[in-house]
This record gives sequence, structure tokens and C-alpha cells, in this order.
Amino acid sequence: MNFEFPFQQLPAVMQGPRIERRRILIGGSSFWGTMQDDGQLRLDDGRVVDAEAACYLPPVNPSKIIAVHISYSSRSFETRNKNKPTETPTYFTKPPTSLNGHKGQILKPADCKYLNYEGEYAVVIGKTCRNVTPDEAWDFIEGFCPALDMGLQDFRDTDQGSMLRVKGADSLLPIGPGLVRGVNLFEQTLRTYVNGLVVQEAHIGDETIWGPHYVIADLARHITLVPGDVILMGTPCHSRSVDPGQVVECEITGIGRVSGTVVAIPAPRAAALGVGHAPTDSPEVRRVALGFDERVPEHFKENLRHSRGG
Amino acid sequence: MNFEFPFQQLPAVMQGPRIERRRILIGGSSFWGTMQDDGQLRLDDGRVVDAEAACYLPPVNPSKIIAVHISYSSRSFETRNKNKPTETPTYFTKPPTSLNGHKGQILKPADCKYLNYEGEYAVVIGKTCRNVTPDEAWDFIEGFCPALDMGLQDFRDTDQGSMLRVKGADSLLPIGPGLVRGVNLFEQTLRTYVNGLVVQEAHIGDETIWGPHYVIADLARHITLVPGDVILMGTPCHSRSVDPGQVVECEITGIGRVSGTVVAIPAPRAAALGVGHAPTDSPEVRRVALGFDERVPEHFKENLRHSRGG
Amino acid sequence: MNFEFPFQQLPAVMQGPRIERRRILIGGSSFWGTMQDDGQLRLDDGRVVDAEAACYLPPVNPSKIIAVHISYSSRSFETRNKNKPTETPTYFTKPPTSLNGHKGQILKPADCKYLNYEGEYAVVIGKTCRNVTPDEAWDFIEGFCPALDMGLQDFRDTDQGSMLRVKGADSLLPIGPGLVRGVNLFEQTLRTYVNGLVVQEAHIGDETIWGPHYVIADLARHITLVPGDVILMGTPCHSRSVDPGQVVECEITGIGRVSGTVVAIPAPRAAALGVGHAPTDSPEVRRVALGFDERVPEHFKENLRHSRGG
Amino acid sequence: MNFEFPFQQLPAVMQGPRIERRRILIGGSSFWGTMQDDGQLRLDDGRVVDAEAACYLPPVNPSKIIAVHISYSSRSFETRNKNKPTETPTYFTKPPTSLNGHKGQILKPADCKYLNYEGEYAVVIGKTCRNVTPDEAWDFIEGFCPALDMGLQDFRDTDQGSMLRVKGADSLLPIGPGLVRGVNLFEQTLRTYVNGLVVQEAHIGDETIWGPHYVIADLARHITLVPGDVILMGTPCHSRSVDPGQVVECEITGIGRVSGTVVAIPAPRAAALGVGHAPTDSPEVRRVALGFDERVPEHFKENLRHSRGG
Repeated sequence: MNFEFPFQQLPAVMQGPRIERRRILIGGSSFWGTMQDDGQLRLDDGRVVDAEAACYLPPVNPSKIIAVHISYSSRSFETRNKNKPTETPTYFTKPPTSLNGHKGQILKPADCKYLNYEGEYAVVIGKTCRNVTPDEAWDFIEGFCPALDMGLQDFRDTDQGSMLRVKGADSLLPIGPGLVRGVNLFEQTLRTYVNGLVVQEAHIGDETIWGPHYVIADLARHITLVPGDVILMGTPCHSRSVDPGQVVECEITGIGRVSGTVVAIPAPRAAALGVGHAPTDSPEVRRVALGFDERVPEHFKENLRHSRGG
Repeated sequence: MNFEFPFQQLPAVMQGPRIERRRILIGGSSFWGTMQDDGQLRLDDGRVVDAEAACYLPPVNPSKIIAVHISYSSRSFETRNKNKPTETPTYFTKPPTSLNGHKGQILKPADCKYLNYEGEYAVVIGKTCRNVTPDEAWDFIEGFCPALDMGLQDFRDTDQGSMLRVKGADSLLPIGPGLVRGVNLFEQTLRTYVNGLVVQEAHIGDETIWGPHYVIADLARHITLVPGDVILMGTPCHSRSVDPGQVVECEITGIGRVSGTVVAIPAPRAAALGVGHAPTDSPEVRRVALGFDERVPEHFKENLRHSRGG
Repeated sequence: MNFEFPFQQLPAVMQGPRIERRRILIGGSSFWGTMQDDGQLRLDDGRVVDAEAACYLPPVNPSKIIAVHISYSSRSFETRNKNKPTETPTYFTKPPTSLNGHKGQILKPADCKYLNYEGEYAVVIGKTCRNVTPDEAWDFIEGFCPALDMGLQDFRDTDQGSMLRVKGADSLLPIGPGLVRGVNLFEQTLRTYVNGLVVQEAHIGDETIWGPHYVIADLARHITLVPGDVILMGTPCHSRSVDPGQVVECEITGIGRVSGTVVAIPAPRAAALGVGHAPTDSPEVRRVALGFDERVPEHFKENLRHSRGG
Repeated sequence: MNFEFPFQQLPAVMQGPRIERRRILIGGSSFWGTMQDDGQLRLDDGRVVDAEAACYLPPVNPSKIIAVHISYSSRSFETRNKNKPTETPTYFTKPPTSLNGHKGQILKPADCKYLNYEGEYAVVIGKTCRNVTPDEAWDFIEGFCPALDMGLQDFRDTDQGSMLRVKGADSLLPIGPGLVRGVNLFEQTLRTYVNGLVVQEAHIGDETIWGPHYVIADLARHITLVPGDVILMGTPCHSRSVDPGQVVECEITGIGRVSGTVVAIPAPRAAALGVGHAPTDSPEVRRVALGFDERVPEHFKENLRHSRGG
């Protein structure tokens, strides 16, 4: 773990009071508001609305979205098949068109089988950032959001590792409901739920391999991060496939809980013409989509079966 | 009228077939689609959704919104109090934060009395445009939308004519439901409705003083218009005030019908401190908000009274 | 003056240390950097470049630009012709296409006579802001920039006060060279220079009628300000016309000095066709463009004459 | 080759007349213009400037940049080491911060050895595009640009194929000088030059494996492409490393010639702390950076040696 925990002095973005900003759509206009202690959302214009009933937009507007492949020890163990993890984090990207809001529909094309969840937290950049040290990096963070880095693992075989087709399709990044600062991230626990049952869990302080400050300093070696950019911080073990009708959620305690419902859409027209890469059901695809069970806590697997009514 | 009508050759943007593009929000992600002949909306991803039930976003993303003060002979007569109109169009602006979608909530602050409707059509710029002639200007138009240029006339007395506070408040520009090309604009009729009753009406070809090609050529004398920019083309006579609960609509035949519902919001906190300009009920405000009745067709006035249950 | 000066506690944006961020173009890529004590610009990537020789981009990327008509007592006296000023600030807008950088070319069309300078400081919004009090407003300011709110006064007669054609033409807003925080704005002096000679001067703390916190609270009564939005804070007395070849600068002590050179461009093609509003040389245009001399310090007028070689 | 050539009917974007739009910076403001037959650039505002002396901005403003790994038969042969190519194209992304203009500085950090050129053409999206067939795809193309997809191959070992660190660093995508339509792409030849000597060459019609219409139809199976999005179409064989001081150019006949100069910048500060992934000189890195010589035309290799004064 590349950070001292507990900190001598907590970074400003993790010092209280907790502030949660959400953005909602009301009849064609978007409005920002701040969550109140009573669970209601006070819009900036003075209206108080029922946060449960609101229609959410992503609380971010990134020019780029960068994701860490592996940042949890349990996921590192799982995907590396007991080999040692990489010595530094590695990254891929998702296009802005993959953004989705809280309570979003996560689209599963009819010709795909393996739409996998990955519960994560996102870090949102607040100031232009380039060539910084990990200690300095905290100052460039505006806040944190729960996120679901969904992936169409049917395309695992293609794109030579960039995962553009796996992770880049429209709707595959539900994020929100809010953008939160004033919470000590390293005291929080990440949990992913399918139909309300826990299928991933990790204590962020205990299991994080590289903190966001390290990742920002690494990325900003050569890439300028600009306000609004989003960094997805990786998922713990037990990423698995879900089907239309299932509800997937990622909760970061103290930060929030984002949800999405899997919805079927038609196969693309180009598919019927044989144009482009077809979803594939290869051993490599199945290896990643269905996962290694070794060392995955048994109740995660059971919960996932139950979520399917199995 | 600064255009030849009928045209020798119709500009491409007005030649068929009619194409209507709409953008909707489904659970946190936005999707574009094309209207079908059966009134359903076919999303680009292949899903077909009920256009009536959809949650609409504005079909535009402008960097600037410019509005013509007067572009209809009936409005020119009304506001000029029988004097001759200006010899060239004049303009003001609305900020992007005033954008609203079809079925939007139009916000009326508790300390304001006079929220006036103005039914209009909007022109959307498709290509970077500067220093063009009216004949060339048609090529820079991507399409047309119905729009409601709402105004808080309580601020008529301030801003020395810019109308920033009158026309610039959040939510005061419902636009949509779609962006349409392939329709001869000059054969269409504009109608504004309050609670379903007609309160403004104008045949665009008969009553337009300056067409969009003329306005674009005029603006582009000194200002670069960029893709997505929106030009609001003015309203005919009988702009009047509406109250919370009333539904306002603007229909451009062949193009579409956009609606918004007036909703009350609290007065701003600064108002209680006496900070900033307070809404005012002066003769000039009432002159514009309540209008001149002379020459306004009687049934418009009756319909507006009926819309209030009067 | 609607602020207590000296402050009991200086707002964070005005507390030291002073930080100045600039954005420059090097061969097709833009780079941010921080000014060093020795007057050099340290780019974020570690390169140190000669700040004098750099090619500047505007240090802002606003979605809207709002300008205060009058915010200095000397300008209020001048333009109001000795009548009392308005009781609250009034505003107009400039489109994003009017943005220009330090050392920009300020374009004067061949058919215009009166291109007036107005030295100002700009306030840049750092966080989404709506419905705030003046005390809270300081927290939403990211920093300050020198700016030149240039205007083609030949269009004074049209647009019914919105000044879209006067203030909205391409290039009419040189801003920069940097975005500065950590300086007490109210201890600074604004000076406008033409060809190096002072033609406007005002001590900001002494002459400001409404501070930026008041203006933000006023605007945010009804309009959401978003990160990057720019507010131009008005000019002191002695706005006058300049001609091609003249160099105009606005210095805000402690903040910086932005310059632009007036350059002639052809009249628009639409002008030859008689399309659109032609520049006009009316008494009202001359009143504003040439100004009232009463109470304008004599040396400003002399300096302007000298700047023309007169 | 997945397109019929010659076409029965040339797509509109490839039908003449040829139109080239360029965007330049003049003293802090950007201006668009159209290239004239005499090689001068006529700005939209009527000024005519020397195209050779201008300061270029990228003629695109993409929300996403997607690159094809391999789209030329010679490159496919080279990188695949005589094995069969993939059956469909594969992709990676570059962030918008990698954009650079014509005559840009291409930055090589002091701790990197292998900065490789790849001459390509870019396709720019003109309309929102999702779920289209190859035949339809042509209508969504606004035009073409020459481009240099530079890569820091020292990072080849990391990022598991996404190449974020290889291809994503600031400045690694010179593109321009203009955006061109009205040229039959398949009759053109791509040439890359180092210090004026040809080091890559391919006839686009003869060597293209997948045309832009196929690539767009493939990507748009699951990803919405939006106006301004850029697709880089891959490079032919003989991508090699260049050093500070060398000038790299990519010419697409009929379209244009973009250049960049390699410039050294300091190693990042995080490098000194051992933070993040260090550039590596492994066999895999050298394999890609230095290339396979088999079947690469001898004069390309000789020219590259000469360009280094060797």
C-alpha cells in the first residue's frame, strides 16, 4: 500500500464536514443540489425534492475517463491466478459516451452473453494537474463517487487489451448518485449488490494497493488531467455476469450507493451483415467473465446464485 | 419580407424527406433517436420507445443563444405602438443555463408576478459560419425546433435593454421535442397554447419580417456562429403572463409542439437581504407584461382568460 | 460600496500566496504553467519558458460571459450625465466567440469608426453557484484576470440596449495573461494604456460601487453560474475610440497587464449587399464613443491625443 | 479489402470540389478559413493570410479519439511476424489532451528512449452516429486530416495493451493542417517523412484492409460517435523511433501534410521518487520500437539512417 494510513494529517478532500452534490433532471432542465441530513435533496434554487424519486444525471462531465485495471489485492490475486501483481498500476480508458447516471439502464445487446459488473469508486479531478507528486495529488481531487465499471466480456478476445469494446459501449458507466467530499475514503467499505445481495466487498483502507494520490501522480507523469476528468479505481474480486432484469448496485459506505438495471437491446444492424467483431464465447472470455472461484468468499457466490433465483 | 417566396429552389434544409431527431434521457444516459411515421421514436440503438412517455433533453447544445427581438409584423405593431418597426432586426442573448427540454418545468420565483410566454421557432447552426450572404446562409442551418422564449417581465426595468434578468433565468427556454429538417418553414403556422387554448398564431411565410437566412447573414457580419448555436426567431403578438400550474406550448406545424409547465420556486435568499435587483411592478413592466390589446384578435384574449378558469 | 473594507477576514481567494496560472500555445498544443518569482513561466511539464515571448491563449473557457454596465463611480458619473446611478448593477453579455488572449489582435472592420476600449478586471467562477449571499459568493471565485471589454460603438443605436453587435464581435475580449488568486483586489489599481500612455485609472477599493461578491449574489438569484464563467466588472471613466495600429493594455496592479493591438479587417460581404445593420454615425453613437469630458482628468485626454501622435 | 473500388458512386464526402478548412491562432483568438487555389488561407472574416507562416490549431475538437491498431497490409505483415492478421480491426484510444496542431512540438521526456512515428490519416465524424451499416457510414464523415500517431514505446510493457502511456501522453497527436472533403481518399498515397526523407509509404486504395466506412460501422455497433470525434486509421510498415531535433511529417496526397518537431522535456518529478511506471528497455519494447526489417523496403531504412546524419 503506497500511502501511510492513518495519515498524519488528513487531506482536505477527506476532512469533514461531508458535502454531497447531486445533479438531477426535472422536465428537461438539470439542477444541482446538496444532500441534507434528513436525506432530502435541497436544490440550489431553494426547492427541496425527494432524493429517492429524483431522475439522476451523472454528477460529472469528464473529458476523459481512465480506469485502473487492478487496485485491490483480492482482485489482483483472482485475475493473476496466484502470480505476483504488476509492480505499478496499469490503465485503460472508457469514452465519455459510456457515462450513465444513478438508476440508469445498463444496456446488454441481444448478441452478448457476458455483461460483468465491477463495483468501484471514482475520483474526480478538480484542477488542471500535470507532473505532481503523490503528496501533492490530493489537492487536485474534487471528490469521490460510487461507480459501476460494467463490461461486455464477450469482446474480451479482441482489441488487444485496450478493452474499448468490452468497457466502452454506451451506458456502461453508472456513476453517482452524488459527488462527495469530506469523507475519509480509507475508512470506507465497498460493496457490490445484485438484486440486493452482496457479491463483492472490500475495506478500501485494507485492500487498496495504490491510492488515488499514487494513481494521479503516475498518470500525470505524461498526461495532463483536467477538471472533471474521472479516474475509476478498480474493483475487488468476484466480477461476474448479470442478465436483463437484474439490479446491480455499488455502495461505498459514507459516499453513496449507485444502481443500474440490466436491460436488453437489439443486436446491432451491422451484426446481421457480418460487419465488425462479433461477440465470442471463447475460453479466455469465459475465464474472465465467469471468474476463478478460488479464494472468493463462498457467500458472494451463493448470493449471486440467489440473485438469479437459483 | 427579405426573402422570395415561393423559392425558385427550396434550400436543402427545407427539402424533404422530413427528418426529426430527438434526444431523451433513460435512467441517467442520453440517447438520440429518429421519429417514425407511426409516432414512435426509434432510438439509434434499435429500441423503439413511446415518444409520448419519454423524458426529453434539449435537442441542442449551443455555445450561444441569440434571440431576435421582433420578427413578426403583428408583434412589431403591438410593441411599437403603431410606430414603424426598426429597419433591421435587433438581438439579445440567453445563457446556455436557460435551456430546458420538452415537458420542462418553467420556474417562476415566488417574488415575481409576470412570467410571459413567447412562442417561437429556433434555428440551429450546423457549420461554422462567418461573413456569409443570405443566399449562402441556408447551408449553415442544421434544422429547426419549436421553442418557448419565456421572460420574467418583472425585471423589464433593469439591465438597460439586455434583458439578461428578464430572459436569462434558469429554465426559461423549453426547446424541442426534436430538431427537424426537410420541412418548408414558410408554409408553416406557429401557435402558442395555454392550457390547450390558442393564445398566439401566425403564418410564418405571411408574417415573417426577416427570414433566418437574413438574420444569420446579419449576425455573421461580425460574430462567428459555431455548430450547435441557436437563434430564436421572435414571437408574434400577444405575449402575456402565465401562472404556476398553467401549461404553455408552442407548436410549429410540420415541426413539432414543445410544452412546459409553470412551477413556483422560492424567492432567492439574496432577496431577503435586499441584495440585487428586486422584481418591480412599474408601468413599463406592466406595459410589456400585460400588453396592448389593440389589434390583438379577440379570441386570443378570451382563450387566455379561459385558460385561467376566468 | 456594498462591502466592508478592510475586511475582518480576507476571503480565501484574496489571501496569499499569490498564484498566477497562464496557458500558452506551443506549436499547436496548449500548456498550463505557473509564473515564477523571476518572471519566467514554469510549465507544468517542467519546462521553463520566457513569459515575454510566449503565445498566449485565454486562461479561461467560459460557457457564459456576463458584463456589468457600470461599477465605478467615475464611469457612473460620466455616462449618467450627472444623474444618480442605477440602484443595482445592470448587465449585458458577450458570446464566447469574443474571447481573445494576451497580445491579441483586436479586429476593427473597415466600415466601423468607433472601437472603444474599456479596461476591466474579470472574475472567474470556480464552482457551480446559484442562490448565494454576498458573503458566501467569495468561495465561488477561482481568481481574477485583467481584461479589455472592447466595443464597436458604431452599433450603439441598434439592439435596444443588449449591445450584442457593440460588444459581441469576434476578438473583442482580450483577457489574461494569467488567472490570479492570492491578491487583495481592493488594494489594487486599474490602469488602461494606449500606446503606453495612461488613459483610464481607478483605485479598485476606492471607486468600486459593487464588489464581485455582490454581483455574483445578484446574478445567482436566478441564473446558475458554472465553473469557468466570466464576469467582467465594468470600467472607470474615459472609454474612448482607438484605431488600427494602436496598442491597448489593461493593467490591474498585482494581477497583470493584458494587451491587444487594433488591426483592420475588411467590411463584411453582407454590407455590400445592404444586408443587416450598418454601422452608424449618429449623435447617440458619438455621445458614447467620444465621451463626456467633464470631470475626466485632463492628463487622460492629453495622453490619448499623444497616443495618436497628436 | 472490405470496400468496392472503384465505387459505383463516390460517397459525397469524397466528391469534389475539394474544400480544406483550417483553424489558426492569431494573437490569442482562433479563426477558421478556407484554403485558396493559390495556396493562401482566406479567413472567414475576409483577411487573407500566408498559410506557410500561420500558427495552427488542430482543426478538430473531439470528445473521443479512437485509433485502429492495424489497417494496412504492410503493417499487418510487419507486426504479426508473418502470421495472419486479425479478422476484424482492433482499437485503442488517445485522450483529447494528446491533440497537437500542424508544426507542433512533439514532446519526448528525458527518461524515454523510443518515441516512434506512425503516419496516418484521420476521419472526423460530422453527425451523431450509432448502429449504422458500412454503406450508410460515409454520410457521417465530415472530412479527413493527415495525422501523426506518435508513441512512447518505452511504455510498451505496461497497460496490458491499452497503450494509454504509450500513445496517450500530451502532444502525441499532431493533426492537420486542415480538415478536407471532396477528395477520393482511395486514390491517395500516404507518406511519412523524417527530416524530409520518406520513411513510410502506402497507396491507400491498394493497401487498406478496412476502410473508414467499415471501421465506423464496427465501432458504432455499441458506441455512439458524436460530431467532432476522430478516428485514426492506422499506419503502414516501418514505424521507428525519432530523436529531439528531428522533424516528422505525414503527407496524404490531395489532403495535406502535417509536421511536428521532436523536443526534449524533463523527466517527470514523480520519476525521481520512484512513483509510477518507469520507461523500460525490454526485448518487447525494442521489438516494437526498432521494428522488424524483413520486407520493409530498403530505401525507407536508408532514409531513416540519413535523417539521423548516419
